[in-house]
Amino acid sequence: MNDYPTRLRQAIQDKGTPACVGLDPRWEHLPRGLTEDGGTPITRSPAVEAMLYVDFCERVIDVVAPLVPVVKPQAAFFEALGPSGAAALEAVIDHARMAGLIVICDAKRGDIGSTAEAYACGYLAGADPQAAAWGADALTVNPYLGVDTLQPFVDVAVERGAGLYVLVRTSNPGAGTFQDRRCDGEPLYETVARAVESLAAQTAAGDAFGPVGAVVGATYPDELAELRALMPHVPLLVPGYGSQGGTAADVAAAFQPDGHGAVVNSSRGVIFAYEKEPYRSRYRPEDWERAVEDAARAMIGDLAEHTPAGSLR
Amino acid sequence: MNDYPTRLRQAIQDKGTPACVGLDPRWEHLPRGLTEDGGTPITRSPAVEAMLYVDFCERVIDVVAPLVPVVKPQAAFFEALGPSGAAALEAVIDHARMAGLIVICDAKRGDIGSTAEAYACGYLAGADPQAAAWGADALTVNPYLGVDTLQPFVDVAVERGAGLYVLVRTSNPGAGTFQDRRCDGEPLYETVARAVESLAAQTAAGDAFGPVGAVVGATYPDELAELRALMPHVPLLVPGYGSQGGTAADVAAAFQPDGHGAVVNSSRGVIFAYEKEPYRSRYRPEDWERAVEDAARAMIGDLAEHTPAGSLR
Repeated sequence: MNDYPTRLRQAIQDKGTPACVGLDPRWEHLPRGLTEDGGTPITRSPAVEAMLYVDFCERVIDVVAPLVPVVKPQAAFFEALGPSGAAALEAVIDHARMAGLIVICDAKRGDIGSTAEAYACGYLAGADPQAAAWGADALTVNPYLGVDTLQPFVDVAVERGAGLYVLVRTSNPGAGTFQDRRCDGEPLYETVARAVESLAAQTAAGDAFGPVGAVVGATYPDELAELRALMPHVPLLVPGYGSQGGTAADVAAAFQPDGHGAVVNSSRGVIFAYEKEPYRSRYRPEDWERAVEDAARAMIGDLAEHTPAGSLR
Repeated sequence: MNDYPTRLRQAIQDKGTPACVGLDPRWEHLPRGLTEDGGTPITRSPAVEAMLYVDFCERVIDVVAPLVPVVKPQAAFFEALGPSGAAALEAVIDHARMAGLIVICDAKRGDIGSTAEAYACGYLAGADPQAAAWGADALTVNPYLGVDTLQPFVDVAVERGAGLYVLVRTSNPGAGTFQDRRCDGEPLYETVARAVESLAAQTAAGDAFGPVGAVVGATYPDELAELRALMPHVPLLVPGYGSQGGTAADVAAAFQPDGHGAVVNSSRGVIFAYEKEPYRSRYRPEDWERAVEDAARAMIGDLAEHTPAGSLR
């Protein structure tokens, strides 16, 4: 069976790590060698930026593909460029799939009825990358509109062998504004978590993880432990490790003892590692890909040492 | 001052109606004259579909531009086609702006920090349609991630003279799953409404409406009346009229006595009117644009008769 939970588990097992690299290209952070031509800054335009985003992301993908099972392109940075960015996102997703990576498109979509279905059809390719325009394995979605609006995403995901990650507890400082409000005696994020577990259990094979996952931030370790227990059928996508402040110890509770059950994402901390110590002193800017590799290896080692992900090796 | 509330008010006043036409192109509903060539069905491909979506939407825009102040393209139906659809959405928005219409891009975006800012920069053009790749006047956004994640959208909106509509009470049957949960003594949608009113009041000129609006469904008239009172600085976008079951009487409470304070959207009921009675009997399929015009005029008359929008004339 070539469904999302099976492919994800296999990929994590093959690489021996649950590390996910976030593809968040931003012009200001691109290595100078890409944004300058012989020392002269390249003139920015959406088409030029999109072309360089593809170049940068493909080179990141080539470096990390042998090391990690999953990449997570962030749709917003591509969409900021308009239609050229939309085409760049397609190229980046295709390149990652060709490199054998699982692709979680982080687009946080959500709408009602047939509109939700249209989004699902556009992004959820599942096992066959050609099955959708943006051929991702999985998509992040927003639950605010209600469980009936998640169902079309679930239906398309099941049909195509794709996955979903529903926002439950996000990693931002103000995540609690609404997510922590006590609703009928429990925080709202728990109410959402119960709904997500129900959708996951309905579509999972027995006790295994299902295609319906949840986003839970590394920056809230207590909630992470609680939510892991509350959602036994739900694979987690854990953002917030690294630049946002989450540590390996903070994300340890996301895993089962066998090291499965979660992928942990780092974006800036890996792809723009060349800008920060210790890599900045170690590598020249033109050797930024070596900084990406070192930072990815450091993250993988950190997770292996301080979380049950060490059992995967 | 050329800000969103001023432009919206002027457009509503000029057309004498708060009717908004939703641009939700779907291949199965396009008039046969567009999807057939001499009686033979055109072979579907994303590029062909995108081209026909542009043709269809531009013709709808040309019909309704003299009649209504606002159109609302639904991003999902364009995105379902991939990058060709993204380019089609750009063309449709540009055509509507050139026709003098206010454009609310219904993309329901939401993310954290600089990622939210990237979305805002991509969609919120404000007064100058060239200021963003998708040059909309306003964008719908999702509040689940927290008030700190709405702030970057507000900042870009204020800077560019654009508008936002935050999802408060959506029009779908299951809207209440989370939105109705009682949080600290009040339904969640009220908690969200208070946060939206606060953002709107901070950015409004005195007692006028601000650039921060809210989405409240026509299908929940009691909540609509309550939310109008709770958010005095917040312009409303009211979906759910027509095909989803909301009536003019249902949306009457969205307005101030002078007829301002809300726009009411109808999508399928106008753009695909040719499929339904009384228009199906009245017009041949190739005369579908006359059905669009009749349905738009009927909606405008209905709102004028049964809501304070009649005061605009």
